[in-house]
Amino acid sequence: MRNILLTLSYDGTNFSGWQKQENEKTGPIRTVQDEIQKVLAVIHKEPIALAGSGRTDSGVHAAGQAATFISPIDSIPIENYIPAINSRLPHDIRILNAVEKPMDFHARFSATRRTYHYVIHCGSPLAHQMPYVWPIYRYPDIERLNNMASCLQGEIDCTTFSAAGDLSVSKHRFLEKAIFYPEGDTLVFEICANAFLWKMVRSITGSLLHYELKGKDKSFFQEILDGRDRTKAGPTAPAKGLFLWNVGFSGKRIHP
Amino acid sequence: MRNILLTLSYDGTNFSGWQKQENEKTGPIRTVQDEIQKVLAVIHKEPIALAGSGRTDSGVHAAGQAATFISPIDSIPIENYIPAINSRLPHDIRILNAVEKPMDFHARFSATRRTYHYVIHCGSPLAHQMPYVWPIYRYPDIERLNNMASCLQGEIDCTTFSAAGDLSVSKHRFLEKAIFYPEGDTLVFEICANAFLWKMVRSITGSLLHYELKGKDKSFFQEILDGRDRTKAGPTAPAKGLFLWNVGFSGKRIHP
Repeated sequence: MRNILLTLSYDGTNFSGWQKQENEKTGPIRTVQDEIQKVLAVIHKEPIALAGSGRTDSGVHAAGQAATFISPIDSIPIENYIPAINSRLPHDIRILNAVEKPMDFHARFSATRRTYHYVIHCGSPLAHQMPYVWPIYRYPDIERLNNMASCLQGEIDCTTFSAAGDLSVSKHRFLEKAIFYPEGDTLVFEICANAFLWKMVRSITGSLLHYELKGKDKSFFQEILDGRDRTKAGPTAPAKGLFLWNVGFSGKRIHP
Repeated sequence: MRNILLTLSYDGTNFSGWQKQENEKTGPIRTVQDEIQKVLAVIHKEPIALAGSGRTDSGVHAAGQAATFISPIDSIPIENYIPAINSRLPHDIRILNAVEKPMDFHARFSATRRTYHYVIHCGSPLAHQMPYVWPIYRYPDIERLNNMASCLQGEIDCTTFSAAGDLSVSKHRFLEKAIFYPEGDTLVFEICANAFLWKMVRSITGSLLHYELKGKDKSFFQEILDGRDRTKAGPTAPAKGLFLWNVGFSGKRIHP
């Protein structure tokens, strides 16, 4: 019996998110967790439960999602897992790495930080970039954006950027980094925290761009944040620009 | 009446190539030319014929395809064409530019050079890169590839790299550039000529990688080329790594 950590990427375009689910009316729908569990079941000849570090929403991509599963067999060399799984998976999921971990390690509960990249396209996107960016057809003021984003540091009550269906008991999250940087014709918003509320990154991104366009400043954004009023958030940015970039397990937790 | 040149990109994944065609058994199939012609017909309220600089195959992408059409109306400001067409097109085609040209200008017959990029992925591609690269899971010898590719200069009889169904009268083409360069974990093969035979770029790319792996050198590749024997070409590289990068109209023709 071994505990195996997978690092994986997926193109969220044709998935209804990470988590396996059933639609009562139409039957099972396509999810990342389900696709990988089906392959793991074939390899192990029995059902295998895969735990992700977090549930990404419908349409959200991943460059470095983390997921763990307990393998009942020890005979498969760990390095063989990558080709064994990839060769059976559809191309829109790719396993990047597989390593053995102690039995008490868990993709979700052992994760200390999650980093997301939100990709905004400022120019004219090429057709093959369209599924992976939010095209805004303008070049925003990066300094203004970063000034407002500098409010997103340390322990924050994130109620303003929570969604109606969010079930978290506490809306407090511990933010480590929130910065915009240009990359060619795109603007990448990198945000790192111990964890995020449902749709929080897309709500923050949409709000920052919304208030940047209105010429608002850092003190205004701080008020929005302190107000803990969801109606003050800007429009939620579309799912297709969002990537779960990586999940961190090393170092001490950035929250108590 | 105006002659309008469009520069456009498309994600070839879900297209059966550029050219409008009918499948006798299943009815019309999805092509880039047809999708744009449908939009032009809506805008002009009559059928409009769109001429591309070249027909890309099923699954091949474009970053800078060129296409011309005669517009019967002069009332639409030229700069309005881009948003007017893009707002009616599916996202896997994007118009990048629209300019007016003299009436004797033609996307196909006025083009003096076509540049293609073939993108090879040498490492572990992320899921969202998969539709746009040929993953070979090894790092080839770039110097060896470029040595062989240096044979592809000037007027060449390209019979070796022609496909069975190619209808060209002459197999001679005028090659200007054929070079590999690394870009992150990918290797880009840039090839430029006055025109190409059907599937020629994919055949050249597949052959170069095939013979590089076998440790062949420039003189061997020159023999293959001189032999004008299609059975000596390597496997054809997959369509999904190929991009029609741009089409040149300026400067003098690089062929008589």
